[in-house]
Amino acid sequence: MRTAFYISDGTAITSEVFGHALLSLFPVQFNHKTIPFVETEEHAYKVLEQISESFQDSGERPLVFYTIVNVEIRKIIARSVGINYNFLDQFVAPLEKVLGIPSKPEKHRTHSIHETTYDIRIEAVNYALANDDGANLKDYAEADIILVGVSRSGKTPTSLYLALQYGIKAANYPFTEEDMGDMLRLPPGLRRFKDKLFGLTIEAQRLHQIRSERRANSRYASLQQCRMELREVENLYRKEKIPFLNSTRYSIEEISAKILAETGLQRRKY
Amino acid sequence: MRTAFYISDGTAITSEVFGHALLSLFPVQFNHKTIPFVETEEHAYKVLEQISESFQDSGERPLVFYTIVNVEIRKIIARSVGINYNFLDQFVAPLEKVLGIPSKPEKHRTHSIHETTYDIRIEAVNYALANDDGANLKDYAEADIILVGVSRSGKTPTSLYLALQYGIKAANYPFTEEDMGDMLRLPPGLRRFKDKLFGLTIEAQRLHQIRSERRANSRYASLQQCRMELREVENLYRKEKIPFLNSTRYSIEEISAKILAETGLQRRKY
Repeated sequence: MRTAFYISDGTAITSEVFGHALLSLFPVQFNHKTIPFVETEEHAYKVLEQISESFQDSGERPLVFYTIVNVEIRKIIARSVGINYNFLDQFVAPLEKVLGIPSKPEKHRTHSIHETTYDIRIEAVNYALANDDGANLKDYAEADIILVGVSRSGKTPTSLYLALQYGIKAANYPFTEEDMGDMLRLPPGLRRFKDKLFGLTIEAQRLHQIRSERRANSRYASLQQCRMELREVENLYRKEKIPFLNSTRYSIEEISAKILAETGLQRRKY
Repeated sequence: MRTAFYISDGTAITSEVFGHALLSLFPVQFNHKTIPFVETEEHAYKVLEQISESFQDSGERPLVFYTIVNVEIRKIIARSVGINYNFLDQFVAPLEKVLGIPSKPEKHRTHSIHETTYDIRIEAVNYALANDDGANLKDYAEADIILVGVSRSGKTPTSLYLALQYGIKAANYPFTEEDMGDMLRLPPGLRRFKDKLFGLTIEAQRLHQIRSERRANSRYASLQQCRMELREVENLYRKEKIPFLNSTRYSIEEISAKILAETGLQRRKY
């Protein structure tokens, strides 16, 4: 199998995202190998050896995706026996022309603690954890968004993703059977913050499957119970005009991007 | 201020990461605008209008970073008045040549629920939450890694990042004063899993500052207490040969990448 290397003097996240996006266009399996923090010439030479070995072992020239700020180290990696994609570089000169100023590369500017919004993201993670699962209604005034939905409809991972990636303070509140009685009504603690509510729903069959992995053969996991709860929350969303989306076919990345697009909430990661 | 648009018929995460990496090379502020899920021609034409308006408002041609699988929609966006960076496209033909097969673009292949490892990542998030803060020593057999360190040294956000991004099951255990007594010893529940331990430490001054935001003027936050706890854990790491890193100057992205590089743990996101 051909190896794809992702190499950087930083985290290599940029190389990974670019390389994955490119390789995902091809119906082929690769062996993926990330080498971050290549910060010395000695380390760079070791990486060259790894690339050569991979070529010898597989008989296929490795693909090498790299972004390296240090010029000396970049020159070393550029000599590898692999097929080299220094994909940022060719965009730099044209962009210098457009902006009318020279580029000023600095190590660790992306994905580092020097991002101006780093502390905001960490604070948002702490907020999401403290306000997970309806834990803390009194802090909802601080929330950017409050995700609501039945147990296991995707609220918690989405809250964490919004916090980690975008610095958004997302609380989440689970509607439980106790909230339902005859008919689900919006709890008073939530009604005060109605403008911040965003609903998640999910197909009953999928919810049944997810809950069964947790508590097999329970009433909680039964298809009948899942159907009842979902009917109640969807009725509530419609009645109260709470925007909502069905998470069944979406990843947390997709759910998060859709929520931001629909609510107009601003990313805080720049 | 010039606007940078990030446009896609998927989440636009790839466009964002590429665009940010490129723009971070320039000491200039931009107005960032992400438009994901442009899936219809009608929507694409609306986007063209937004780009035009931004040009009119600021007098500066917007930068437009886009990755769009649908050919018709891509053609529409390519007509924008902005400076267009369809940055994946120019790499596709050369890569087809290298691989000897045609590309086969499919919508939503990256950052979607169709990733083969999606369920692993969600399971890892649930694991990280259930095993946060020493909550659940009995599940450590399942852990890929157990982060240890004093309160507020970065364990929890790092565990969540490892889970969300890489599908790694990371538990975390806080050493508290109760563990310390005369001298910090490794609790028996952890000793059994010594090979999985990875230590975090942090500069005392920074820890003092973080803890003071939480509980100002407490003994917990005092510089003296922070120094004592850090001395104890660092002694323990050295004595027990637990690999560790000082998180003071690193983001969670950097800490996570360093942990993976040092431990050899494999990313599960492909």
